[in-house]
Amino acid sequence: MERIIATYFIETPIAIEKAAAILAGEQSSGTFVAVPGETEALKARFAARVESVELLEAVTEPAIPGSAAGTGLYHRAIIKVSWSIENFGYNLPVLVSTLQGNLYELTQFTGLKLMELDVPPSYADHFPGPRFGIEGCRRLTGVTGRPLIGTIIKPSIGLTPSETATLVSTLVTAGIDFIKDDELLSSSANSLFEDRVNAVMRVLNHHADRTGKEVMYAFNISGEIDEMMYRYEHILAAGGNCAMISLNSVGLSGTKKICDQGELAIHGHRNGWGMLNRHPLLGIGFPAYQKLWRLAGVDQIHVNGIQNKFWESDDSVVRSIMACLEPMLGGFSIMPVVSSGQWGGQAPETYRRTKTIDLLYMAGGGIMAHPDGPSSGVEAVRQAWKAAVDGLSVEEAAKTYPAFGRSVEKFGTK
Amino acid sequence: MERIIATYFIETPIAIEKAAAILAGEQSSGTFVAVPGETEALKARFAARVESVELLEAVTEPAIPGSAAGTGLYHRAIIKVSWSIENFGYNLPVLVSTLQGNLYELTQFTGLKLMELDVPPSYADHFPGPRFGIEGCRRLTGVTGRPLIGTIIKPSIGLTPSETATLVSTLVTAGIDFIKDDELLSSSANSLFEDRVNAVMRVLNHHADRTGKEVMYAFNISGEIDEMMYRYEHILAAGGNCAMISLNSVGLSGTKKICDQGELAIHGHRNGWGMLNRHPLLGIGFPAYQKLWRLAGVDQIHVNGIQNKFWESDDSVVRSIMACLEPMLGGFSIMPVVSSGQWGGQAPETYRRTKTIDLLYMAGGGIMAHPDGPSSGVEAVRQAWKAAVDGLSVEEAAKTYPAFGRSVEKFGTK
Repeated sequence: MERIIATYFIETPIAIEKAAAILAGEQSSGTFVAVPGETEALKARFAARVESVELLEAVTEPAIPGSAAGTGLYHRAIIKVSWSIENFGYNLPVLVSTLQGNLYELTQFTGLKLMELDVPPSYADHFPGPRFGIEGCRRLTGVTGRPLIGTIIKPSIGLTPSETATLVSTLVTAGIDFIKDDELLSSSANSLFEDRVNAVMRVLNHHADRTGKEVMYAFNISGEIDEMMYRYEHILAAGGNCAMISLNSVGLSGTKKICDQGELAIHGHRNGWGMLNRHPLLGIGFPAYQKLWRLAGVDQIHVNGIQNKFWESDDSVVRSIMACLEPMLGGFSIMPVVSSGQWGGQAPETYRRTKTIDLLYMAGGGIMAHPDGPSSGVEAVRQAWKAAVDGLSVEEAAKTYPAFGRSVEKFGTK
Repeated sequence: MERIIATYFIETPIAIEKAAAILAGEQSSGTFVAVPGETEALKARFAARVESVELLEAVTEPAIPGSAAGTGLYHRAIIKVSWSIENFGYNLPVLVSTLQGNLYELTQFTGLKLMELDVPPSYADHFPGPRFGIEGCRRLTGVTGRPLIGTIIKPSIGLTPSETATLVSTLVTAGIDFIKDDELLSSSANSLFEDRVNAVMRVLNHHADRTGKEVMYAFNISGEIDEMMYRYEHILAAGGNCAMISLNSVGLSGTKKICDQGELAIHGHRNGWGMLNRHPLLGIGFPAYQKLWRLAGVDQIHVNGIQNKFWESDDSVVRSIMACLEPMLGGFSIMPVVSSGQWGGQAPETYRRTKTIDLLYMAGGGIMAHPDGPSSGVEAVRQAWKAAVDGLSVEEAAKTYPAFGRSVEKFGTK
């Protein structure tokens, strides 16, 4: 029988093997006294199994509070635990409750993070996965040979639909490939969702008619199920090709329902992610996290960016990009969305470390606030990527490409 | 214009007022350079506002890593921040993205937890809230004057529907009010959801016909939207009155969709909660968390229990129970579900500290493993609550009530 394998980074005041066994027991049959009916045959079929234990260092201070009395030492380890898929079948929420669930509550752990997740081949038969992925997003926008260049409508909230449309008009004229709503905006008092879609799509449709270039706009549909479905249909009817969902706020079941409609590319925003990942020994690591959303069918997912304005290290960002690019179940392609303080200056380092152009590269202020205007802002980011692929440094690129050179003057000291 | 007020516990290496202003800015208009269109009028209408700052201690080690370079001191404070409801209207996922969202990523914070949340009166007009709540759950089960006594089917996973039904038969004969699936089980290879519902409901319907007593069974419907809707209908058609959802695994949008059907009481399981709350300075506190689920319409929510088997302190459990019992928007009643290692021995202390009987009191092994069998187990828990309300200690209750006395012999040394 096929099994799901989960990899955890744990810290425990008790013996690692015992802690691992408790984890497995809690997530397949735990109660505080033995109960009738818990037979050996039943355990053999449904019990979780500790597959491996790799001992790491011991520390003298617990990573998070709430431990059972221990020896004064907290042992760290990487452990792998497996479950038969007979336990939950192809049900993502129950999979999550099994792999995470009550585990974070156990006193036997002073740290626990789900790092990786391996699902068996039959999952490919039951989950359609991302309908567009990298290839589909390229096809929808007609972009080849470089990353998709995107930007976010700013200010986050407050513009009217017609002000948004004016900004969109500037951006498409500038040559942008992708634009998105901020996650703070779905439908506000002065920018009703439908009005904004109509105003923006008039600009995009006109631009497409005139130039043949389809720009992707991710309208933030996050909301209740029926509302999301209605808004999805509204985007489709207006000629749009993408919707955005705040993954953590909407949740797995709601997101999958939307992805399953299959007609729009789904831009997955991971806001709230810091709560799940910022602590090194609590929560879930991105390699496991992104797999859940690929199973749900998300086409694009945020990975932060090199030299971002947030707390995350470049190493962590690179690992996240590589996790997205690794094929899953023979496909399940998802496009990494690079964002946060990006302006083109990070392109050489991003390419040097990932060797990929299969990215949606988002620059906000980096495009809008270019000293020569948004057109030069978009041009500068494209130049930065051309230079990056050619192996130029930021300094070399600045000398070769005037528009990029001007952005280095403005943003290069940050 | 009405405003939403959020209370945060923060830690920052920079000046508290500056950190608070950055938080408010990030969640209403943040980008790393000023952009055109961000006018004063627009800011006045849509900007988040710092309402108060209450300075606490400073520490020399950051609570979580990833801080900006600071002075070596990390300042803690309670701050209140407000947003106009014009920003997001009555959209729970966008509310969550606004109140939490990218905040956890900011280098200006080495700790951030959303502690409390106040929504304005008009929310009562837009959200129907829990359809059953405490009164409705009492009505469905016919229980007055004491907590509902419940238990969980164990082993968590592995029993067949007919084995489950046999156990249910024993439990209803024993006088139980409430039974639930474990969160690890929704539909497994040897317990298909529909088969289990049919087998269990045959027992419960027969019992009701014979005795007039309706026992509530929370079938775990957690899954995809269409699957949950189908299973909901199946429970209803079979005569059931409750469904269980793993709140964090399903998410806000999916949970609200199910609550909005309005015909079954919704048992909200908070597994995964430790990830969001176990760290004192990361995530979300229960008072804020439970309000989100009351807005979504959940009727029952887990609060852990006194002297539980998990990491949580009794003080924290008491705070959670009291948070559930505090009216919200003039109602929005939700029943606290007390569970984890409970057996009746905790009833006196639970009552002493909360002075309430409006609880669903769950005892797993504490009922099934009573030395004289499940009937005595249920009787013992009822006796414990009678004693608790009468002000008896565990020792006094053990002398007064034989069945409870026997459980003290078995479980009292734990």
